[in-house]
Amino acid sequence: MKIWLIGAYGIVSTTAMAGQKAIEKELIDKTGLVSELPQFEGIDKYAPLKIDFGGHEIRPKSNAYEALLEHWEANKHFDKEILEAVREDLEKIVARKGTAINCGEGVRALGKLETLEDENKTLGEIVDQLSKDMKSFADDETVVINTASTEPMIKYEEKYHGSLDGFEKMIEEDKKEYASASMLYAYAALKNRLPYGNFTPSVGTNIPALKELAIENKVPHAGNDGKTGETLVKTTLAPMFAYRNLEVVGWMSYNILGDLDGLVLSFKENKESKVVSKDKVLEKIFGYSPYSITQIEYFPSLVDNKTAFDFVHFKGFMGKLMKFYFIWDAIDAIVAAPLVIDIARFLIFAKKKGMYGVIKELGFFFKSPMDTDEVNTHKQFEILVNWFQRNR
Amino acid sequence: MKIWLIGAYGIVSTTAMAGQKAIEKELIDKTGLVSELPQFEGIDKYAPLKIDFGGHEIRPKSNAYEALLEHWEANKHFDKEILEAVREDLEKIVARKGTAINCGEGVRALGKLETLEDENKTLGEIVDQLSKDMKSFADDETVVINTASTEPMIKYEEKYHGSLDGFEKMIEEDKKEYASASMLYAYAALKNRLPYGNFTPSVGTNIPALKELAIENKVPHAGNDGKTGETLVKTTLAPMFAYRNLEVVGWMSYNILGDLDGLVLSFKENKESKVVSKDKVLEKIFGYSPYSITQIEYFPSLVDNKTAFDFVHFKGFMGKLMKFYFIWDAIDAIVAAPLVIDIARFLIFAKKKGMYGVIKELGFFFKSPMDTDEVNTHKQFEILVNWFQRNR
Amino acid sequence: MKIWLIGAYGIVSTTAMAGQKAIEKELIDKTGLVSELPQFEGIDKYAPLKIDFGGHEIRPKSNAYEALLEHWEANKHFDKEILEAVREDLEKIVARKGTAINCGEGVRALGKLETLEDENKTLGEIVDQLSKDMKSFADDETVVINTASTEPMIKYEEKYHGSLDGFEKMIEEDKKEYASASMLYAYAALKNRLPYGNFTPSVGTNIPALKELAIENKVPHAGNDGKTGETLVKTTLAPMFAYRNLEVVGWMSYNILGDLDGLVLSFKENKESKVVSKDKVLEKIFGYSPYSITQIEYFPSLVDNKTAFDFVHFKGFMGKLMKFYFIWDAIDAIVAAPLVIDIARFLIFAKKKGMYGVIKELGFFFKSPMDTDEVNTHKQFEILVNWFQRNR
Amino acid sequence: MKIWLIGAYGIVSTTAMAGQKAIEKELIDKTGLVSELPQFEGIDKYAPLKIDFGGHEIRPKSNAYEALLEHWEANKHFDKEILEAVREDLEKIVARKGTAINCGEGVRALGKLETLEDENKTLGEIVDQLSKDMKSFADDETVVINTASTEPMIKYEEKYHGSLDGFEKMIEEDKKEYASASMLYAYAALKNRLPYGNFTPSVGTNIPALKELAIENKVPHAGNDGKTGETLVKTTLAPMFAYRNLEVVGWMSYNILGDLDGLVLSFKENKESKVVSKDKVLEKIFGYSPYSITQIEYFPSLVDNKTAFDFVHFKGFMGKLMKFYFIWDAIDAIVAAPLVIDIARFLIFAKKKGMYGVIKELGFFFKSPMDTDEVNTHKQFEILVNWFQRNR
Ligand SMILES: NC(=O)c1ccc[n+]([C@@H]2O[C@H](COP(=O)([O-])OP(=O)(O)OC[C@H]3O[C@@H](n4cnc5c(N)ncnc54)[C@H](O)[C@@H]3O)[C@@H](O)[C@H]2O)c1
Ligand SMILES: NC(=O)c1ccc[n+]([C@@H]2O[C@H](COP(=O)([O-])OP(=O)(O)OC[C@H]3O[C@@H](n4cnc5c(N)ncnc54)[C@H](O)[C@@H]3O)[C@@H](O)[C@H]2O)c1
Ligand SMILES: NC(=O)c1ccc[n+]([C@@H]2O[C@H](COP(=O)([O-])OP(=O)(O)OC[C@H]3O[C@@H](n4cnc5c(N)ncnc54)[C@H](O)[C@@H]3O)[C@@H](O)[C@H]2O)c1
Ligand SMILES: NC(=O)c1ccc[n+]([C@@H]2O[C@H](COP(=O)([O-])OP(=O)(O)OC[C@H]3O[C@@H](n4cnc5c(N)ncnc54)[C@H](O)[C@@H]3O)[C@@H](O)[C@H]2O)c1
Ligand code: NA
Ligand code: NA
Repeated sequence: MKIWLIGAYGIVSTTAMAGQKAIEKELIDKTGLVSELPQFEGIDKYAPLKIDFGGHEIRPKSNAYEALLEHWEANKHFDKEILEAVREDLEKIVARKGTAINCGEGVRALGKLETLEDENKTLGEIVDQLSKDMKSFADDETVVINTASTEPMIKYEEKYHGSLDGFEKMIEEDKKEYASASMLYAYAALKNRLPYGNFTPSVGTNIPALKELAIENKVPHAGNDGKTGETLVKTTLAPMFAYRNLEVVGWMSYNILGDLDGLVLSFKENKESKVVSKDKVLEKIFGYSPYSITQIEYFPSLVDNKTAFDFVHFKGFMGKLMKFYFIWDAIDAIVAAPLVIDIARFLIFAKKKGMYGVIKELGFFFKSPMDTDEVNTHKQFEILVNWFQRNR
Repeated sequence: MKIWLIGAYGIVSTTAMAGQKAIEKELIDKTGLVSELPQFEGIDKYAPLKIDFGGHEIRPKSNAYEALLEHWEANKHFDKEILEAVREDLEKIVARKGTAINCGEGVRALGKLETLEDENKTLGEIVDQLSKDMKSFADDETVVINTASTEPMIKYEEKYHGSLDGFEKMIEEDKKEYASASMLYAYAALKNRLPYGNFTPSVGTNIPALKELAIENKVPHAGNDGKTGETLVKTTLAPMFAYRNLEVVGWMSYNILGDLDGLVLSFKENKESKVVSKDKVLEKIFGYSPYSITQIEYFPSLVDNKTAFDFVHFKGFMGKLMKFYFIWDAIDAIVAAPLVIDIARFLIFAKKKGMYGVIKELGFFFKSPMDTDEVNTHKQFEILVNWFQRNR
Repeated sequence: MKIWLIGAYGIVSTTAMAGQKAIEKELIDKTGLVSELPQFEGIDKYAPLKIDFGGHEIRPKSNAYEALLEHWEANKHFDKEILEAVREDLEKIVARKGTAINCGEGVRALGKLETLEDENKTLGEIVDQLSKDMKSFADDETVVINTASTEPMIKYEEKYHGSLDGFEKMIEEDKKEYASASMLYAYAALKNRLPYGNFTPSVGTNIPALKELAIENKVPHAGNDGKTGETLVKTTLAPMFAYRNLEVVGWMSYNILGDLDGLVLSFKENKESKVVSKDKVLEKIFGYSPYSITQIEYFPSLVDNKTAFDFVHFKGFMGKLMKFYFIWDAIDAIVAAPLVIDIARFLIFAKKKGMYGVIKELGFFFKSPMDTDEVNTHKQFEILVNWFQRNR
Repeated sequence: MKIWLIGAYGIVSTTAMAGQKAIEKELIDKTGLVSELPQFEGIDKYAPLKIDFGGHEIRPKSNAYEALLEHWEANKHFDKEILEAVREDLEKIVARKGTAINCGEGVRALGKLETLEDENKTLGEIVDQLSKDMKSFADDETVVINTASTEPMIKYEEKYHGSLDGFEKMIEEDKKEYASASMLYAYAALKNRLPYGNFTPSVGTNIPALKELAIENKVPHAGNDGKTGETLVKTTLAPMFAYRNLEVVGWMSYNILGDLDGLVLSFKENKESKVVSKDKVLEKIFGYSPYSITQIEYFPSLVDNKTAFDFVHFKGFMGKLMKFYFIWDAIDAIVAAPLVIDIARFLIFAKKKGMYGVIKELGFFFKSPMDTDEVNTHKQFEILVNWFQRNR
């Protein structure tokens, strides 16, 4: 199978590539890959662990190895031997020039960028180019995954986002202020009938227009925003308070990280969509909204070592207040990269099984799962397992 | 309904009494009571929240109020107004003299004790007395719950523990070295056809002899060891690592607490059964045994404020080691007391539904659930809910 | 001696009053009082622990007991017996109406206020009234301490703040936009020759105009901002990294608290002066500025239980990055209240010894000590001890 | 100058060698070296940062590089480039065979050992050999530092440990049961007039017999037990509670580590001297003994990444209990290695200045500083600085 990565030179993307190649070379085991659990036996028949990569980028680099090397120098997040062993494979992966339309100041801060819109292209021309790039790479078993930097939230505009017709009119009329890069990539993917997974909080396929297109073109898609760190823990742990009828009166979630991702998020507008996408899970689990803080701040020396500090204030029997604290100290790219592969595999599985539209059973992988209110990690895992086992 | 508490003057017992009375007086809400969740609607029909208390004790006190007052002075674990409001009710609760056979040095350290064996009674005479005490209190809707101090582990002796006949021979022949207090209480309860719940790691009904008696007498029972603090968190959180195919390479669990419970556990032999009962959950969840530390130490100034420090060392994609820490800072009696009421209610429900023997669907409440390997808190909750809803 | 408290009905003020009265009644020991350490033997001769209280307020309450009772209901920060024992004493303490000029939205959010400026008074009239209130209470051994809510930072204006003449012209010309409440209180105190301590980050005496007045009137004063929680720990711990030549590459300080103080700080402008006053200590200790985060957020359920989360990222030998975390879980009023008494005592001592102007040797008590760069807690303590012992 | 390391192939020793060589090659800066702080300007004149290494060992390895490579593979505690750059230098460092007399089960668990006593040597012969080894390496600017695995505590025996005569009689009479390896090394060092620093909790020179020899031979020595992790933080932080008259009612210190050091300490008898050496600092700082826990447990996956969990329970004004937690997450060899170099440099400085006997001004570097009760890190630093500046 093949994966086309939007943001192909990011740390999540390049770590996924390196890990996948290391697995193919039997240098590492399959730790971290959900799809390799015994519960998913048989997935290999539909989506074997043999994957080619391509993608779009806006930071000019010679190839994925060059990009990964920079991330690796800053993070040393796996053994140098592995880096060297996959070097040749990654040198062959060269991303195509993408678009950064309405990606905000945070993305501009990434340094020298090269985008399609630099060349004064219209929306129509941009979309055509993205689509052509994907088509020239893709086969029947190709998935597009968005792992690009988080865009600012774009204001929802019924006229252009509410229907496929409207969306295509927006393109036609070159209404750039209503388009964001992630929508255009998603549109190109679905147009090419390529399953699409949104690992980011950016809008991606999450507007009626593109959901309509997915149905029309019979393409499965899933999102949004990979659930990897603090939210993963939160949605695993919060149910415990609910089961025990303990009332959560406050939940503080404070995240720090460095790296490009942290840098982009340090820009207020790009952060916004991140903060919002994390906000609703507690309410969904508890049925009420405890006072909560969810913050992400830039902390350069940590690089990709996202650290989360959580404090839960809860009330027990007879009104007694009690406390729970946790610290999550993990490498974001390491927890994220295998999920990119998992999502792609399950989307291929869905496609082969004739499913299309939002695959809500993949909610397990996302902070803001589309078209479902189930955010309890335990239930999501059960749903995923049942869905797979019922259909395999 | 009625609850007969072994260890009636302990902090868990007296807090349960005070909380229940405060609920009856509508002074507090029902936070902390699992059985009051919407999922268990209808339980009231079988086990209304209107409860009388009695029990056995070995520390001589005038009544439950005097005992609670001491715990309260040390812990201030709820509002003084509540204490005063339930005073009269608790003054009426006077425990009967119990037995401390083979309860070890830890229990002896509790201070001046008064036990049946002081009077040179044989096992047979002790059991008779315990049984008579229970019978004089109990009605058809009475449950016995063991909330006494943790006994040392007693060596399993097939001859006397392996069958009901053997057990009764042990009593007859007055083989005191093979009996422990918790067995004798449990035997008396089952003989009286009273459902029995074991909130402690002590042996209770957890020997073939008494399981046989429960079947023979058609009595439901459940145990062992209330799952309240660190183990509750651990069995909620550990599945997350499993779902994500993350390998846990080490799990440190370090608990400190003061109070009588902490004092008893500070004696090596009494601690043993506590440590053992916590040891196996990780293996059951992961299918492998990560290196693990489980320790409980005495820390007097915390009194009943059990604090747990956990550190999880886990391996992700590409072999990367990462870290997770948590601190649990709760009041043991507060998290435990409502469960005593919950367990009693569900046992009455079981009895009225004609169930008997080990009610393994109550595993949700226990650290070492009898006759089941399911320790995942989430699954246990689902099992409990399904069981109740199927049968109500 | 006597203490006149600006913000007399706040939790710090009323807790100081209650604690002092409880000490006088020998209900509690002297834990928390720095001035009662053996190193300060002899202070009693100058400033015995027998203190009367008065003060200014803007929240209308009948008396200090009523105010304290509200704080106590929310915090239960000491035993009810003590509260009852000091009730009568506190009922006698009735604050005078103060001013809230330029105290911002945060202070307005405190609820119904009554201030001198309500009555359309000029600056001159306000100052006169404040001064009269103080004079009618004060004797030769009276100190004024500012424990009022934090004001927004006021823009420094050389013309009116740079000299005593300018300041008095500002009053005369009724230039309200340049005055803040804390300045006016401080001015009234110094005019009355009353030593002044600023427990808050508000400007207080910290402008050339008032420093000049202190010199002219020969009054000792000290500030700013009581060093109680995270900054206390930080300035104790940071030197360790310096002594060991370890390079701190990042220091995160994240504070949450509820209560009136938290509420006021939840208003951006009022928070600003708080954040700024914490920012510079690391640079002063290290001689370089590590990347740092200092944040305070409102967390209502904690009430006065300020909790601080700190993370220190430091580099050791051979460039290795390592980590240190701490959590501070204390009651703000409890750590602050005794310092109010300490500061007052040491200011009386200073006055009796003929000292005046900024008493920089009191830097130990402050987050932003005036006229000194020494913020290392250890050194500050040594300086305080030496100063006292040299002069006593 | 030269350093002779007892335990030359340990991780502390080999990391010190690698770091020193990397400094000489200007590959790394001097972070972590106390002696390179501006306060110690001038030390270079006495003890330039140009150091040759030798030492004793009991684990047979070809050379220090081979030993370091093993530690490095397990820990990756510095960049591989550095490892490669110092390879040749470390290959030249070949340790001499040492003694492991009475080093206990923990040391035996290190694997295949080669020791002088294997060859049936008497104490006299062993000491002669150790002494010869040192002499053949040493010059006038050579220091011996003990960084070998921690020995079990040896029972103090006045007859043989109480005087130099007794000690030499012990050797003469070959009373092996009274000798421990660290004593013999220390004796050999002092006999050769080589300054001796004890980085471990083993006895080393800490008996009257060897203190006498140091005086007689006019040799400076210092110890015991490098203060690097939790004790460093504890002795920095505890004074804060003292300065503020806050009463510490409990202090929990829980340490986990892997590695050879962790393995050795996992043996009860070897751990004992470690636990005891940490126990007394709180009492020295507070003047009273709070309830305290000090534990070290083996946690293999952490390797040399010692992690400490501390909890401080303290009482403030009006009797209120409050809490402080810290987590120390550092690499033991990284925090220790530069101190080995520092201690050696300051001992050479002392020697050149004609000082001898215990140099108590070096207490800053040790958990159990000899001949002084000053354990406050801050004061120790001041003492060190003053001593150096007064004498340089
Ligand atoms: N790592 C995690 O655990 C995690 C979890 C959830 C979501 N995410 C999201 O995944 C995304 C990737 O994270 P990362 O850590 O790899 O970040 P990164 O900054 O390393 O990578 C993002 C890449 O996208 C590129 N890019 C930015 N805008 C683009 C555009 N419009 N078109 C094409 N390429 C573009 C950037 O040049 C960069 O190479 C982020 O949005 C992040 O918020 C990550
Ligand atoms: N609190 C929790 O969260 C929790 C969780 C799981 C298990 N437990 C267990 O529950 C039990 C009660 O805990 P607690 O905190 O109330 O302890 P506690 O010490 O306050 O109460 C125990 C009571 O049992 C009495 N007792 C001891 N041996 C007895 C005997 N043989 N017969 C009759 N009475 C006896 C004691 O006198 C005491 O009054 C302990 O075994 C504890 O380990 C508690
Ligand atoms: N508690 C600590 O540890 C600590 C440490 C450092 C600084 N402080 C500062 O001390 C001050 C008091 O803290 P608190 O917790 O007692 O707060 P609080 O809100 O309980 O008390 C402040 C009191 O000041 C009154 N007030 C507000 N503006 C006033 C004005 N202009 N004139 C007269 N009264 C006024 C309020 O009505 C209130 O009663 C705050 O500024 C806080 O930032 C507290
Ligand atoms: N790393 C720290 O922060 C720190 C702090 C204080 C004390 N220490 C102490 O320093 C010592 C070294 O620590 P490490 O982490 O390098 O341990 P390590 O196990 O890596 O090294 C110890 C070395 O000593 C050797 N050895 C053991 N017994 C010996 C003997 N009798 N003669 C000669 N060699 C012997 C071992 O073979 C090993 O190579 C330990 O005693 C440790 O407790 C370390
Ligand atoms: Na990232
Ligand atoms: Na070590």
